Amino acid sequence: MSHLTKVKEWLSYRPDLKVVDCTIRDGGLMNNSQFDDAVVKAVYEACLEAGVDYMEIGYKASKKIFAPSQYGPWRHCNEDDLRRIIGENDTNLKIAVMADAEKTDYKTDILPRDNSVIDMIRVATYIHQLPIAIDMIKDAHDKGYETTANIMAISVAAEHELFEGLELLAESEVDAIYVVDSFGHLYSEQVRFFVQKYLEYMSDSGKTVGIHAHNNLQLAFANTIEAIAIGANMVDATIGGLGRGAGNCQMELLLGFLHNPKFNIRPILKCLQEHIEPMRAELGWGFDIPYLVTGMLNMHPRTAIEYQGSEQSKDYIAFYDSTIQNL
Amino acid sequence: MSHLTKVKEWLSYRPDLKVVDCTIRDGGLMNNSQFDDAVVKAVYEACLEAGVDYMEIGYKASKKIFAPSQYGPWRHCNEDDLRRIIGENDTNLKIAVMADAEKTDYKTDILPRDNSVIDMIRVATYIHQLPIAIDMIKDAHDKGYETTANIMAISVAAEHELFEGLELLAESEVDAIYVVDSFGHLYSEQVRFFVQKYLEYMSDSGKTVGIHAHNNLQLAFANTIEAIAIGANMVDATIGGLGRGAGNCQMELLLGFLHNPKFNIRPILKCLQEHIEPMRAELGWGFDIPYLVTGMLNMHPRTAIEYQGSEQSKDYIAFYDSTIQNL
Repeated sequence: MSHLTKVKEWLSYRPDLKVVDCTIRDGGLMNNSQFDDAVVKAVYEACLEAGVDYMEIGYKASKKIFAPSQYGPWRHCNEDDLRRIIGENDTNLKIAVMADAEKTDYKTDILPRDNSVIDMIRVATYIHQLPIAIDMIKDAHDKGYETTANIMAISVAAEHELFEGLELLAESEVDAIYVVDSFGHLYSEQVRFFVQKYLEYMSDSGKTVGIHAHNNLQLAFANTIEAIAIGANMVDATIGGLGRGAGNCQMELLLGFLHNPKFNIRPILKCLQEHIEPMRAELGWGFDIPYLVTGMLNMHPRTAIEYQGSEQSKDYIAFYDSTIQNL
Repeated sequence: MSHLTKVKEWLSYRPDLKVVDCTIRDGGLMNNSQFDDAVVKAVYEACLEAGVDYMEIGYKASKKIFAPSQYGPWRHCNEDDLRRIIGENDTNLKIAVMADAEKTDYKTDILPRDNSVIDMIRVATYIHQLPIAIDMIKDAHDKGYETTANIMAISVAAEHELFEGLELLAESEVDAIYVVDSFGHLYSEQVRFFVQKYLEYMSDSGKTVGIHAHNNLQLAFANTIEAIAIGANMVDATIGGLGRGAGNCQMELLLGFLHNPKFNIRPILKCLQEHIEPMRAELGWGFDIPYLVTGMLNMHPRTAIEYQGSEQSKDYIAFYDSTIQNL
């Protein structure tokens, strides 16, 4: 049975469904990746105990564009920083990092895999950057890594360009292609449309399709399980939903939904309570009305993030009116 | 085309889809229905301006069981209290009240419709109370009201009893039958199952199917739009999600999703900001981890609600462990 038709049965599960924790990577957008080692270590231990398959621990960002004086170690993921947390990475929990097209000195900063504790390079790209992304994928693949292509902001991409991009990716070395709802704009019907399209384009190559959802419309978890039902086999989540703006699909909701007995929710709840929730007051991620407004209007959440940090953040009507005025 | 196949097209809309605001009724479970008149009036005005079809303004609860000394006016909805807010109810916004089986002195307390400003009686019932509920429906129907049957806690109902109940309701005077996810336990696949079943059982009578969702798994909005996509035509929401425990489908998310231009989100956001959010600190509704735990385990949320009001409410692990221990 192809992965096009192999959808979720209710009480059974798909052993090939992989869960990716992005807590430190996506959360790093709220604090310039300046997490204490204790937090990163706690997330790592929680993922390990919970049966999570991959932990995306940060970015491989250019040190020219993202100065190490301004950004924490999880923006660059030097080997010595990684080893301080994960040692030699000799567990079942694989380690991923994100490399953004045009923001990464990938030829030099991504080492041959034999010299690294990283297992997977996730290449984030806008559709117009795809030629660069495909070169980054080839570079990482040739160095020995697993790879993914995360095409961002598809809710504003031209569909004929997106589908042409999927054809190119189907012929590339990439292992998985992600549906990424950067603006938190997609409703379940649209998630279904995109995941089905991605699966169709990958049906010959057998590449995995993934989902990365945001919570601007309180649909991050719902859209993730919708994608799973249709056949997505690589799914992103973060503890407590920690992530940019309205945040992400919550790992604790996702593990509560999945039926594979290898997953265990308790270590996630413990990490949430002891390490993630204590950061909420300062970092201020999570659903609020300004994200509803930008999500509903299919806009980048940057104005909502800025508003959440302002003194008038609870004046919803002022934000709504100014957003509508500037459409 | 029957309502079984008449599902949502993306940019079009179904004019027959009705939105029901339950803010004061469901929210009344968090404060013994003791809302200031100003709040009730603000919700009424917001619904009117927003194009909402029905406002469920409270309960018709027995004064023997719910003493007027302990409960606010929206637990009993006397005519003089209603008229203080809505006058003669001469707008397009219809007024509904909820009557719980075994908690309502319906023969005496529900007046003939000619003597009331109420338009619709919504009968809430557990499946084992259905004979009472059907008598209440007949009573209300004969008095001149629109009626609904809201079968609660279907995630723990025996399916053969539920389906037998749907047969009885299909033959009754009731206008609409609700899928009610009292425990906030249903995932979208299960919502789909129930809504399809309800539509099948109502296909001959042409009765409307409704959805009332709770947010224990952050799926209240997602499950509501899933139900709409399948054919539910009467949908419940509350401003800010105000409601028991984890709360309800948020009206502002729902109106942002619906395409009928008669709906307007701005009055809802204004009421949310000025009247609903100011109550959050005291009433404490909304998603939190204890609701995830009871929702995931298909339990009534009462232990989670109690825990949320306790000093240790942020000790998620203690709640998780004690809940698992007592399964």
